Amino acid sequence: MIVIGELINTSREGLEEAVKERDAEFIQDLAKNQEEAGAAYVDVNCGTLIKEEEEAIEWLVETAQEVVDVPLSIDSPNPEAVKRGLEKHENESPPLINSITDEEERYDELLPLIQEYEANVIALCMEDEGMPDDCDDRIRIASNLVDNLKEDGIEEDRIFVDPIIQPIGTDQEMGLHILNAIEAITEKYPEVHITCGLSNISHGMPQRPLLNRAFLVLAMSRGMDSAIIDPLDEHLMSLATASETLLGNDEGCMNYLQESRADNLVV
Amino acid sequence: MIVIGELINTSREGLEEAVKERDAEFIQDLAKNQEEAGAAYVDVNCGTLIKEEEEAIEWLVETAQEVVDVPLSIDSPNPEAVKRGLEKHENESPPLINSITDEEERYDELLPLIQEYEANVIALCMEDEGMPDDCDDRIRIASNLVDNLKEDGIEEDRIFVDPIIQPIGTDQEMGLHILNAIEAITEKYPEVHITCGLSNISHGMPQRPLLNRAFLVLAMSRGMDSAIIDPLDEHLMSLATASETLLGNDEGCMNYLQESRADNLVV
Repeated sequence: MIVIGELINTSREGLEEAVKERDAEFIQDLAKNQEEAGAAYVDVNCGTLIKEEEEAIEWLVETAQEVVDVPLSIDSPNPEAVKRGLEKHENESPPLINSITDEEERYDELLPLIQEYEANVIALCMEDEGMPDDCDDRIRIASNLVDNLKEDGIEEDRIFVDPIIQPIGTDQEMGLHILNAIEAITEKYPEVHITCGLSNISHGMPQRPLLNRAFLVLAMSRGMDSAIIDPLDEHLMSLATASETLLGNDEGCMNYLQESRADNLVV
Repeated sequence: MIVIGELINTSREGLEEAVKERDAEFIQDLAKNQEEAGAAYVDVNCGTLIKEEEEAIEWLVETAQEVVDVPLSIDSPNPEAVKRGLEKHENESPPLINSITDEEERYDELLPLIQEYEANVIALCMEDEGMPDDCDDRIRIASNLVDNLKEDGIEEDRIFVDPIIQPIGTDQEMGLHILNAIEAITEKYPEVHITCGLSNISHGMPQRPLLNRAFLVLAMSRGMDSAIIDPLDEHLMSLATASETLLGNDEGCMNYLQESRADNLVV
């Protein structure tokens, strides 16, 4: 499970203030804690700052990477902000761009950045006509995106398809649309990663963590191998660890046993 | 999720004594609690009593059914004990026989009981040559069993295929064998139910409930619609409820919302 730690995001309570005040300790604690909890990427997003976003993302990248070994996920719909973040990114491993879409303008602006910085990229299933409705929409947009990225020189295993999670509360078939899309995309492009902004599934519902946990495991069963989540949620992370073991991705169950001995598994 | 409550089983601590002493209150509490927690069948098993099994199962059936509305699951590898249990079973809904196998003698002895009592039946993927090793074994034995049962007049929706859960600790591919078998059997026989003795997956491992919970959700994602479990495990039951909602089996998410309002969902 390639965990993308979602906690450094100015839409979360207290974060916008911390970024405006350039509170490095606050940000660095969040970055370190997520890496220690198993994040493979630490996402940085300051999109709510709008006019100050481009300056702020430079500071976020510099501040966060000072204290972690993992690369960052540069998260903005604004290509100029992505560019500014990438310019500051220093790591042996490539950064992750969050995200390109099948919208023509956004695609054309982000592609050169993926190429120049040899970045990995989240390919969000969105197009100029809007968001996908059902399973077939997701498969069609994902296929367009992956085919185009491959033609433009981006290898499958650098692409993280995000099928777009919409709330189960708005459409009782939403879970099935997404799960069936994950299975189909994984089958069509075996090297592509699948990720998602998991918690959107439970928007507007009670006991949200329960729906998030169940959906993570349901999606892993269909081939999802990454998620944009809170790595400090021990219940969620424990279920992910157990699921990886049960899905045959843990030789001799060694990782599960190690995590158990390290007291990292919450029952 | 068709829950088969597993708690009345003399292999569990204290149960053998309770059955030997004919402690009706103890057994009836277990039966009632499981029904209240959502069991669709209450399983009764006194196989450890060996010589006294046949008499004991009559008492268990009479004692348990006095206090619950749901039918029972008559659980024994011994056809004579199954017969004695069925003779005492009284319910508007048919009992469940746990279980028939693809072993010739057992099949021939149990088939007339299924027919006579119009029972539903668990079809355990075991044959005269022994237990299945991999996914293909499971699909082959399940197909034999379902085809034979159908030829013998048992409709698909009365059959609960149990693919046999063996411990992940003995074979890191075991989870995949079972999950892929569940998917294939569900596709081949759309009306057949899939069930399993869930907790076998975690035998010998630490933090067993975590593996059990993850495997329940992974298997539901592939089509499993029943399980032989402890319905008093609130975490497991909450994840099952959430998964049903996410799999499109909960119109307007009404069941999830009701369970939430009734304080039945544990986060």
